[in-house]
Amino acid sequence: MISAAIVGASGYIGGELLRLLLGHPQVSVTACTSRRFAKRRVDSVHPNLRGVTELAFCDDAELTEYDVLFLATPHGANLDRRFHALAPIQIDLSADFRLRDAAAYERHYGQPHPDPAALSCYTTGLAELHRAELAGADLISTPGCMATAAILALTPLAEAGLIAGPVEVDARTGSSGSGAADGPANLHAERSGAMRLFAPIGHRHEAEISQATGLPVRMAATGVEAVRGVQVVCRAELADGADPIEVRRAYRRRYRDEPFVRVIAQSRGIYRYPEPKILLGSNYCDVGFAVDAPRRRVVAIGALDNLVKGGAGNAVQSLNIRCGWPERTGLEFTGLHPS
Amino acid sequence: MISAAIVGASGYIGGELLRLLLGHPQVSVTACTSRRFAKRRVDSVHPNLRGVTELAFCDDAELTEYDVLFLATPHGANLDRRFHALAPIQIDLSADFRLRDAAAYERHYGQPHPDPAALSCYTTGLAELHRAELAGADLISTPGCMATAAILALTPLAEAGLIAGPVEVDARTGSSGSGAADGPANLHAERSGAMRLFAPIGHRHEAEISQATGLPVRMAATGVEAVRGVQVVCRAELADGADPIEVRRAYRRRYRDEPFVRVIAQSRGIYRYPEPKILLGSNYCDVGFAVDAPRRRVVAIGALDNLVKGGAGNAVQSLNIRCGWPERTGLEFTGLHPS
Amino acid sequence: MISAAIVGASGYIGGELLRLLLGHPQVSVTACTSRRFAKRRVDSVHPNLRGVTELAFCDDAELTEYDVLFLATPHGANLDRRFHALAPIQIDLSADFRLRDAAAYERHYGQPHPDPAALSCYTTGLAELHRAELAGADLISTPGCMATAAILALTPLAEAGLIAGPVEVDARTGSSGSGAADGPANLHAERSGAMRLFAPIGHRHEAEISQATGLPVRMAATGVEAVRGVQVVCRAELADGADPIEVRRAYRRRYRDEPFVRVIAQSRGIYRYPEPKILLGSNYCDVGFAVDAPRRRVVAIGALDNLVKGGAGNAVQSLNIRCGWPERTGLEFTGLHPS
Amino acid sequence: MISAAIVGASGYIGGELLRLLLGHPQVSVTACTSRRFAKRRVDSVHPNLRGVTELAFCDDAELTEYDVLFLATPHGANLDRRFHALAPIQIDLSADFRLRDAAAYERHYGQPHPDPAALSCYTTGLAELHRAELAGADLISTPGCMATAAILALTPLAEAGLIAGPVEVDARTGSSGSGAADGPANLHAERSGAMRLFAPIGHRHEAEISQATGLPVRMAATGVEAVRGVQVVCRAELADGADPIEVRRAYRRRYRDEPFVRVIAQSRGIYRYPEPKILLGSNYCDVGFAVDAPRRRVVAIGALDNLVKGGAGNAVQSLNIRCGWPERTGLEFTGLHPS
Repeated sequence: MISAAIVGASGYIGGELLRLLLGHPQVSVTACTSRRFAKRRVDSVHPNLRGVTELAFCDDAELTEYDVLFLATPHGANLDRRFHALAPIQIDLSADFRLRDAAAYERHYGQPHPDPAALSCYTTGLAELHRAELAGADLISTPGCMATAAILALTPLAEAGLIAGPVEVDARTGSSGSGAADGPANLHAERSGAMRLFAPIGHRHEAEISQATGLPVRMAATGVEAVRGVQVVCRAELADGADPIEVRRAYRRRYRDEPFVRVIAQSRGIYRYPEPKILLGSNYCDVGFAVDAPRRRVVAIGALDNLVKGGAGNAVQSLNIRCGWPERTGLEFTGLHPS
Repeated sequence: MISAAIVGASGYIGGELLRLLLGHPQVSVTACTSRRFAKRRVDSVHPNLRGVTELAFCDDAELTEYDVLFLATPHGANLDRRFHALAPIQIDLSADFRLRDAAAYERHYGQPHPDPAALSCYTTGLAELHRAELAGADLISTPGCMATAAILALTPLAEAGLIAGPVEVDARTGSSGSGAADGPANLHAERSGAMRLFAPIGHRHEAEISQATGLPVRMAATGVEAVRGVQVVCRAELADGADPIEVRRAYRRRYRDEPFVRVIAQSRGIYRYPEPKILLGSNYCDVGFAVDAPRRRVVAIGALDNLVKGGAGNAVQSLNIRCGWPERTGLEFTGLHPS
Repeated sequence: MISAAIVGASGYIGGELLRLLLGHPQVSVTACTSRRFAKRRVDSVHPNLRGVTELAFCDDAELTEYDVLFLATPHGANLDRRFHALAPIQIDLSADFRLRDAAAYERHYGQPHPDPAALSCYTTGLAELHRAELAGADLISTPGCMATAAILALTPLAEAGLIAGPVEVDARTGSSGSGAADGPANLHAERSGAMRLFAPIGHRHEAEISQATGLPVRMAATGVEAVRGVQVVCRAELADGADPIEVRRAYRRRYRDEPFVRVIAQSRGIYRYPEPKILLGSNYCDVGFAVDAPRRRVVAIGALDNLVKGGAGNAVQSLNIRCGWPERTGLEFTGLHPS
Repeated sequence: MISAAIVGASGYIGGELLRLLLGHPQVSVTACTSRRFAKRRVDSVHPNLRGVTELAFCDDAELTEYDVLFLATPHGANLDRRFHALAPIQIDLSADFRLRDAAAYERHYGQPHPDPAALSCYTTGLAELHRAELAGADLISTPGCMATAAILALTPLAEAGLIAGPVEVDARTGSSGSGAADGPANLHAERSGAMRLFAPIGHRHEAEISQATGLPVRMAATGVEAVRGVQVVCRAELADGADPIEVRRAYRRRYRDEPFVRVIAQSRGIYRYPEPKILLGSNYCDVGFAVDAPRRRVVAIGALDNLVKGGAGNAVQSLNIRCGWPERTGLEFTGLHPS
């Protein structure tokens, strides 16, 4: 058993880390922090944990030393790496160390990164692309939820050279992606049934997708009616000579041995393409594709639960690899149908 | 044309008043207030009014004189009747003057009413029970949304003496009933899909239902997944000698000439009992019933749109009566199917 | 008053035609057909019409002669124009006569059109593009719901020559777009919370958008959680020399006098881009845009209620023009906030 | 490992049995039947099982012998116990053997039970009330979903003699309770956002609640917007002498050692009473209460996931007891927040 602490555990990502780690046979959560809810029990904020734990939130200042520290902090809060001395392994779920290139950070976040040298010290917490490095990584940064879906949807095409030119990514997300912060835009009466295009151009996850795939990316993001769930629909031109059979083969081959990526491309049934509805609580990212051969176009689709494979699950999967445990440990939940 | 002002027009009830009054051929809205949004256009808060009006919110202090004043203020804000000099006709949509009995007010609101003598000066803005008084009323107070549904569901039984003993009211409500105030409980991620029993005992609307029906009432209120809509299921014992035919007759007779109450009791089809889903935007209150003759029980059901017949629509209907206009004026929208 | 009949009035589009026409001061609905529900009252299927009408469905065979006939039939049912003798004005809401080019029809519908000469006899029932022709049109065919949104979103750019090359359209739609036909894919438990990519490539509405804008179009369509509502997000390259100011000006100028198109592009507030949530029941199509000047891209957005501006409302608006009535007649409902 | 077969595995309860049993370390599912989907893979109907199993449905006629047989059949299909020879342990999730009294069966199901003697051979699959008998039971019948919630909510009060007279049960349920059968009433466009009172009087689960608690019960059942989830609100009179402290103590004491019942009665936070939203996929039944001491009333509340604790989970829990395995085996999932 190793000891773990979670900074920022009262948010939705933090709560999901708690859920996963409390069920993890190799990890003991010994501290979790919340400035707002310090001293209150975690199940007062995350009621699904009632009967599962008697843990209470503490203040950041009460943290001591741990084997691993999870940072589920708001973007920007860990830029100064204030917690770096507390644990040899650090897994940062915020956006602070997701980009390896300081110029890209400045372009997308509107200000220079205060510690640009640190950017290259982090390994991206996405097993499907960085499994080997993760085995030895002490600083891990998990990608954004929409970025994770798009990267996994596009990687087979990008690696096999089957697409050319820019990729148009249309991302849809549930409300939990906005976090537990209240505000008029997240009021149920306003957000319910919404199709809210909150970033028609220039969403920051573009940079992560480009970094991972090497392709220019243009992304639009819309909040749709769901609490959990992200779906991306990515459209690009087929490379010269690429055909539908190669596309199918590229997906099958790329993900044949991946425990948490399923290739979905059914010709019948209700769920023919990846859909987050059946993934709630699970660590799967479902990916799929459609090819418009006459017009030389390909559509790549990805779906996941933004709080699991798009956040806490990716972090736990990364820890499993780092610690040499079976990769599925603590991540076995399969999702529900219907839900 | 008469001139109208709305105090508290940035809330959901205030916005609905705006929608109805801007489409009302006899009323000109000449002012509407919001402390928070003063000087901003009303369509910046109520986007359905884009293209319909260029009106902007003003501050309470800028109010002058009007023919009618609508008070869509938070409960308590009008207890001192600070706006009484501004208009000869005042229609208060808050809870401040709903009870005629000062003792009942104190019991349900936890403090004495500061102006108990005023309670009896108000007429309840519910046409189906107070049409004659409303024709001459200068001070009108509309009932609560859940109370309106329950009163209209129970009145045929109560007036005909067909029920005995206490009534158990189970009320379900959409999220707009909580108003436009943000807060963690109204966050989409928390409120979506909820079945939130926010008042298992002692809801204040009990007092209004008792006042109108003369019956003891016990009410439980639950927030369910919907933005608009209230449904009440009321259960009571049949009076000695009452039978199903009398029950049916009582409903038909009581509401035969009512423009905004429909008696729903179908033996087939999907919509056999009153349901708010088909009432959004409309001023109807649908009522229905079921009789369990062997066990001498009756179930009375009511449904409405809490912002219309449960709020702004009741207010406009009352004004129509007060001014001698056809009662349906400005309230013709029939609701949507499906929606 | 003119007399109107609706063929296929038990479906969702047919029900919406009933709702609009029963409230229309110049039209008397004298017949409406449903094979399945013949002899039953229309309010047994469309419960929002209770108390509004006592009309019953009849069989197609019982139709006689009318001033105008609305065809809300399934696609294919009117290809033989079996009802052509029944009324001098025919408004077809199906897909049968939407394309003017027989080759395009065959390409998108997979079979030759049985009456290709008739295609050019129809006028497209979209006032914003065909107002002048509609004034004299006897055969009117309304466009598809997603096509209507995309055409109105793109027209200012297309007409002003501000975009180049192919347009990527991402369309999202509520469940009522699938009609009232049951089947496992439309079961609530399966469809609720869905992000169902039902047409990643080759949706038939592509042809209509291309026909109207002259641009190559690639469309993907996804069913999202909503009953009513369509939103399209259209992405294209800015033409050489085009700039954000011209884009804005093109929208403002093109739709300045349109009664049912609103240009939405707000820099603050919750509803910054077009969103169907606030349009339920209304005949508005809201359009908006965002420009990514450095990358020479433009995003055009459209939203509408698929049963109103995307169907029955377009039909009524077309009739109003054809008959010389004020264009807003019977279409005044503004939509709700919140809903 | 024991071998298990599921009859009726393409329905929602059957799919949930598959999910739970495929993750159960002591059970091997060797057959599952569906007449409609025979020969198709189970993951073609239950897409959450993709990658988890390659099992296919077979026809009932292909069944051989198993250690345990689960019957997830429609009500009535197992009345003749046609599968009795196939397994020594039978767990019936239908309504066929839920009542022990043949007269009650006839009263509630409208026809005599064809095998009344068999009714007393079954043990009710509800561990909290029948744990000792389940340890030796070969024929197990799990209770209805709403009945399970109400029985668990009321049992502490009933056993301690703290309530008198009849109980009014108000039950709310998601759409998956209607099963996977399609039909117009379950169409998304009709069922979405519904508050559909489908059984205002005489719901069959009344008989099960009375049987378990010894109290007269009157139940009304409403379909609300949710896919999974049941909540019951039960109201009764406090017995003479009973007080709030005894009520609290009765709940705490009764469920202190129960692994799957949590007593929820919080004075602050968002989730103060039992709510199914946080229970999706979990085997918990949350129960709670509120006491109106002045009026001598008590409200008992229960919530669960109808497909888990209200169905498949109860069945697995019963099997765990019957086989002497730890009761939580295969049922460890805690539920999600938010969801």
